[in-house]
Amino acid sequence: MQLRIPGPTPCPPEALQAMSRQMINHRGKEFGQLLQSVTARLRQTFQTKEDVLLLSCAGTGGLEAAIVNTLSPGDDILACSCGVFGDRFADIAEQYGAKVNRLNFEWGTPAKPETIRQALRANTNIKAVLVTHNETSTGVTNDLASISSVVNEFDKLLLVDAVSSLGCIDLPTDDWHCDVVVTASQKGWMVPPGLAMISVNEKAWEACSHARMPRFYLDFAKAKDYLQKGQNPWTPAISICYALDATLDLMLNEGLQNVFARHKRVGQMTRNGIKSLGLSLLPDESCASNTVTAVNASDKLDVPKLVQILREEYDVVIAGGQRKLSGKIFRIGHMGLVNEDDIKVTLQAIEKVLPKVRY
Amino acid sequence: MQLRIPGPTPCPPEALQAMSRQMINHRGKEFGQLLQSVTARLRQTFQTKEDVLLLSCAGTGGLEAAIVNTLSPGDDILACSCGVFGDRFADIAEQYGAKVNRLNFEWGTPAKPETIRQALRANTNIKAVLVTHNETSTGVTNDLASISSVVNEFDKLLLVDAVSSLGCIDLPTDDWHCDVVVTASQKGWMVPPGLAMISVNEKAWEACSHARMPRFYLDFAKAKDYLQKGQNPWTPAISICYALDATLDLMLNEGLQNVFARHKRVGQMTRNGIKSLGLSLLPDESCASNTVTAVNASDKLDVPKLVQILREEYDVVIAGGQRKLSGKIFRIGHMGLVNEDDIKVTLQAIEKVLPKVRY
Repeated sequence: MQLRIPGPTPCPPEALQAMSRQMINHRGKEFGQLLQSVTARLRQTFQTKEDVLLLSCAGTGGLEAAIVNTLSPGDDILACSCGVFGDRFADIAEQYGAKVNRLNFEWGTPAKPETIRQALRANTNIKAVLVTHNETSTGVTNDLASISSVVNEFDKLLLVDAVSSLGCIDLPTDDWHCDVVVTASQKGWMVPPGLAMISVNEKAWEACSHARMPRFYLDFAKAKDYLQKGQNPWTPAISICYALDATLDLMLNEGLQNVFARHKRVGQMTRNGIKSLGLSLLPDESCASNTVTAVNASDKLDVPKLVQILREEYDVVIAGGQRKLSGKIFRIGHMGLVNEDDIKVTLQAIEKVLPKVRY
Repeated sequence: MQLRIPGPTPCPPEALQAMSRQMINHRGKEFGQLLQSVTARLRQTFQTKEDVLLLSCAGTGGLEAAIVNTLSPGDDILACSCGVFGDRFADIAEQYGAKVNRLNFEWGTPAKPETIRQALRANTNIKAVLVTHNETSTGVTNDLASISSVVNEFDKLLLVDAVSSLGCIDLPTDDWHCDVVVTASQKGWMVPPGLAMISVNEKAWEACSHARMPRFYLDFAKAKDYLQKGQNPWTPAISICYALDATLDLMLNEGLQNVFARHKRVGQMTRNGIKSLGLSLLPDESCASNTVTAVNASDKLDVPKLVQILREEYDVVIAGGQRKLSGKIFRIGHMGLVNEDDIKVTLQAIEKVLPKVRY
């Protein structure tokens, strides 16, 4: 099967084999060594010297953790959104009582650093900026280097949703002064869902010490406290740690820069292939993502039928659009375990099915 | 290895094999069927006709969910505790702003229904009662039948931590009017950690509709909404669902009553064995748990050394005491995948090590 949705992504044999390992004591020495070793290699892939914490939850739990650990009810925040996941990040903050200033960009376009600068200038109360590095729902990668530089000018806290970018698209956490960066196991990391991985720098820890949003299960301070003794405060998703232990080796052996270059190649190959089929991309190529490609169906293609025939007759699984893009786009995931052959198979299948699904 | 801690518990080959299955689309038909089928069989094991929800988190996340979905800041609650996990349940409620009335029972003794009755009579503002069915830290099983009957007299909401009892010790959720019951995958269910399973009855749903504690990732209403279309709101721990699919078959094929009887047998066998070694149990036998046995070390045994020698020389992994019982007791887990032979091996190893660890 070609599982070409934007997560969960296919797992390599090394990860699947690791998943079938028997349980061990999560408060014992063996798990402690595993946790420390996984954490050390995560810091390499996050390109950070700061803390990286593991929480047993989905990416959405990780986003919630980023908010509740650093903010207080009533805090003014700027939520930059250009799609479903940007909106979700803002919704979480609102749910916990933040005063959310929503800066919405048209779906399919990126967040504009200059607009963010103006918003920060206009409201000096803003304490934190929420931004999605790679918007999975529209296939847009935001210019996080420029955005982080703007946020840094104003010395605000920067909380980054890097769920579908980290480990695939370059994100030098420390160099870009990203205070909290959230990712999740089932994306570029090539392991099953169940773990969120989150970097927390000194500025974020300082914010944590004042943050009054309620938290218990997702508490950063508890996670850090237990990590120092090689544990997690609660029973962690041990099997996912086993698998991550295996895939981090694969990633670091390939070399981070090579992993990024491979994603760039398969991203470009996907976009070229789509265009050569006479289809157009939702976003402009200048901001098109190297982990997920969003293709316009407009009123010419029956997306549910395309998805169904690809799955049933070609064993290729792609995704439709979400929310207001439902039926309007389809999406091809190419993050984690993916190479040129996978894209070739996927594009060939799409080419064969297209004539059957045109209106 | 004999993994005889009170969770994570050993997984049978069927579960480990299922864990190594490749990922699928969590929004597709195949996962939808799996989720519906797992949920239906969970309802059988919970002995409920009400909703059972799956959240991708540890048991502590499930306890937090029980609180934040049914209560509002300022609500008076009665938290019955006789150990670490009862305290934790109370701590979570406090963290989210509940007015927590703590009813603490001596560690090693059970919660007394009559004391709970008096507390409910004394404070008519109390909205909900928190109780731990099986206190893992002391090896005590509370008399939930009597407690639930008292709570029912006063028509209060009953939130039950059944993390280390459900699927091992009889808990007829509906018959006992338990409004929210929380368990977790790595205990009696014989699969790795990563999933909490939670029943929510009509009375709890009514409480949910008024509850104002903030929640997003752990939101019950969202989980129910998505369950109706065979999905989870966020990306679920798919592998754990695969494994649970396998072990639910094992449990139901054995027969729930047989599973309970087996736990009763191994519990009794553990207690008898411990006594025949000249050791005493922490709790009175009348409330001793059939999933975890807590043994007094008092000042006669070096617990860390006992745990270490058992692990290093006999491949038997047991647990020490927690918090104020650290060094004072050791604990043997016997939940999930356990039979008489396992207990025999464990007891024989303990017998051999005892002379080496007496002060």
